[in-house]
Amino acid sequence: MRRIKLVVAYDGTNYQGWQIQNNGETIESTLNRALLELTGEEIHVHGASRTDSGVHAMGNLAVFDTEARMAADKFSYALNQRLPEDIRIQHSCEVPPDYHPRYQKTVKTYEYRILNREFPLPAYRLNTYFVYYPLDEERMRQAAAYLVGEHDFRSFCAAGAQVKTTVRTIYELSVERQGELLTIRVRGGGFLYNMVRIIAGTLIRVGSGDWEPERVKTILEARDRKLAGPTAPAKGLTLMSIVDEAEQENLSADRPLIMR
Amino acid sequence: MRRIKLVVAYDGTNYQGWQIQNNGETIESTLNRALLELTGEEIHVHGASRTDSGVHAMGNLAVFDTEARMAADKFSYALNQRLPEDIRIQHSCEVPPDYHPRYQKTVKTYEYRILNREFPLPAYRLNTYFVYYPLDEERMRQAAAYLVGEHDFRSFCAAGAQVKTTVRTIYELSVERQGELLTIRVRGGGFLYNMVRIIAGTLIRVGSGDWEPERVKTILEARDRKLAGPTAPAKGLTLMSIVDEAEQENLSADRPLIMR
Repeated sequence: MRRIKLVVAYDGTNYQGWQIQNNGETIESTLNRALLELTGEEIHVHGASRTDSGVHAMGNLAVFDTEARMAADKFSYALNQRLPEDIRIQHSCEVPPDYHPRYQKTVKTYEYRILNREFPLPAYRLNTYFVYYPLDEERMRQAAAYLVGEHDFRSFCAAGAQVKTTVRTIYELSVERQGELLTIRVRGGGFLYNMVRIIAGTLIRVGSGDWEPERVKTILEARDRKLAGPTAPAKGLTLMSIVDEAEQENLSADRPLIMR
Repeated sequence: MRRIKLVVAYDGTNYQGWQIQNNGETIESTLNRALLELTGEEIHVHGASRTDSGVHAMGNLAVFDTEARMAADKFSYALNQRLPEDIRIQHSCEVPPDYHPRYQKTVKTYEYRILNREFPLPAYRLNTYFVYYPLDEERMRQAAAYLVGEHDFRSFCAAGAQVKTTVRTIYELSVERQGELLTIRVRGGGFLYNMVRIIAGTLIRVGSGDWEPERVKTILEARDRKLAGPTAPAKGLTLMSIVDEAEQENLSADRPLIMR
């Protein structure tokens, strides 16, 4: 029995999120089915991040155990032949039998993308959130600076989420504009439920001029979800990468990711 | 009666091209239906470019005549409320009653986009052509240089296409790489049937190393479709803009187009 790790990219538009649900297709159920077809085994993948319905990924992680004798790096090709076009394995390799991506110390990078112009563009409809009123990215950057570091992010956690602690650490929170495309990029060790989307919804309020950047400091300190902005729509969010803390130093933090 | 011009963006994935067909949805039929719903009139739009099935547009043009009293610039908003998400009007204005975009002297810009990496990325599946073997963009640029200017492009015209002359002028043909994304950009006064896709298919053959750049000169001079490369898939092609020759000088040739 070997444990195989997969790097998984998907367009979440047509899925009810990662995790198996009673109704509707999920990334997890689709991967399990492709693995059954490939190996003949009833395999259940374990994902690093259970992304919500409509959220996309360039690099989610999953592991599974198999008796199949195929070379570990060949699973990517063999699975891609059996997966729908909106899910593509980017890498496969063998990992130690006790490796589980959810219990590793990892650094996750998310991007929240906003199309900021007068009219929507069809080519961007699936993976950006469309905002027609002008957003000032400099104000958004000022607001973002209050959130970097270790904080109690209770104000930025979906109400009712059950977690031991709402303290998290954000290593980087940048706001970049390329023409009409705004990208909020956030890197951290772990995130609360809906945290990135609530941060995005809050920064949009600041960018529009509704709120002053300093208000984000007040929101953070209040530890009250009701004070933060709305949860921005799932379609704008992409899980870019999950990297083991130990591996991180070997990687360029800003390796060229083309999805911009 | 007034004549209204529309700038139309669409994702061509779910359409049988621009022009009305016996079966299947087209951009034209979808626009006509939205106009009927909006105005109560049986309106038939006339497009500048009848893009093929699966081809996308950022800026195709269409005109129609109407008795509706709505302000000309408001048609864009009103139509967008009645159109599916994969078609969006970018601009609407009144034009002289004899204006027809197909009979104007215009400059058209197309982009053919190639995702060049080991594995496909779901986020790019609808509007790039995926090529897993390495493409050398410098070789492609050398080959492209032979095609710029006025030439008989019979070798780059779909066999059987009926046209008076196969002489056309290409003003610009660039090959740009941004990480794993290759963009072939071509600007000209008019194009033969499948011309841009055959040019793309030919440049890919050169980029892969199969053909030497100089071979494109031989292909051009032979005036024989059989010598050129294959017609590259429709999904990689986007009609970026159509500009009246007279207007062109007022526009920056390289206005930032975000779709890269």
